[in-house]
Amino acid sequence: MKALRVAVVSGLMVCGVAPLAQAADPEEAIEYRQGIFEAFAWNFGPMGAMVKGKMPYDQAVVTRNAKRLAMLSDMPWEAFTEDSDFGDTDAKPEIWSQRSEFESRIEAFEKEAGKLAEVAAQGDRKAFRTQFGEVAKACKGCHDDFREDD
Amino acid sequence: MKALRVAVVSGLMVCGVAPLAQAADPEEAIEYRQGIFEAFAWNFGPMGAMVKGKMPYDQAVVTRNAKRLAMLSDMPWEAFTEDSDFGDTDAKPEIWSQRSEFESRIEAFEKEAGKLAEVAAQGDRKAFRTQFGEVAKACKGCHDDFREDD
Repeated sequence: MKALRVAVVSGLMVCGVAPLAQAADPEEAIEYRQGIFEAFAWNFGPMGAMVKGKMPYDQAVVTRNAKRLAMLSDMPWEAFTEDSDFGDTDAKPEIWSQRSEFESRIEAFEKEAGKLAEVAAQGDRKAFRTQFGEVAKACKGCHDDFREDD
Repeated sequence: MKALRVAVVSGLMVCGVAPLAQAADPEEAIEYRQGIFEAFAWNFGPMGAMVKGKMPYDQAVVTRNAKRLAMLSDMPWEAFTEDSDFGDTDAKPEIWSQRSEFESRIEAFEKEAGKLAEVAAQGDRKAFRTQFGEVAKACKGCHDDFREDD
């Protein structure tokens, strides 16, 4: 519990996108952010399979998954806390050394994911496919620079 | 990808609370639901520390974390899919054998988490503490019956 208080008091936030200090030791932070990334994949995966024609288009799943992805899109970043570059993580040190670049990638992703939720709910399959591509590009853009082996 | 399609077509949903079929093999389902539970803990933990007087009360964190917990509260259940009782999981077989009881526990949790988001945003510390207790009870009620070693 002391660790929690220290984290809050010293304001370990790396990423300005999520302005609230969050308490955790590095291992907890890594597990949490990886959990959210699992949730990204869980929601993203079926939409990708539909876009690729590997799964029948399902409007209800598209609407729900895109909405969830948008809700989740601002959650992982606060967990790239100080010292959580060490441990069982694929995070590159550049997240900590090139913070403003990392933050602009995040902003781009959040924006595209938010748009996807809107577009998906409208039911225009072509627009959905296009916007899905924008989200995928935003993911890849960040992974290329800030994630190992990706 | 074939696995994804089969999952959707055969409708592997265990839990009626989330009515949309979600595609995954058991291992993916376990990783996803555990990821969401990590996210529960990440948001729940600091609120608990505040309620216990281990961390200074922070209205912004309380508002945000309670809102996130409510948004996350309906996400894990669709991943208690067929055959995901086997694998690296603490899920008890009763989740699959006592489905309606499991579903009522989920409903109770979602309801209390939703209330917590409302109460938290209002800024009444005492009401927050009380409602936080209700959410904690809902967690425990489900864990006691449906989670190993808890």
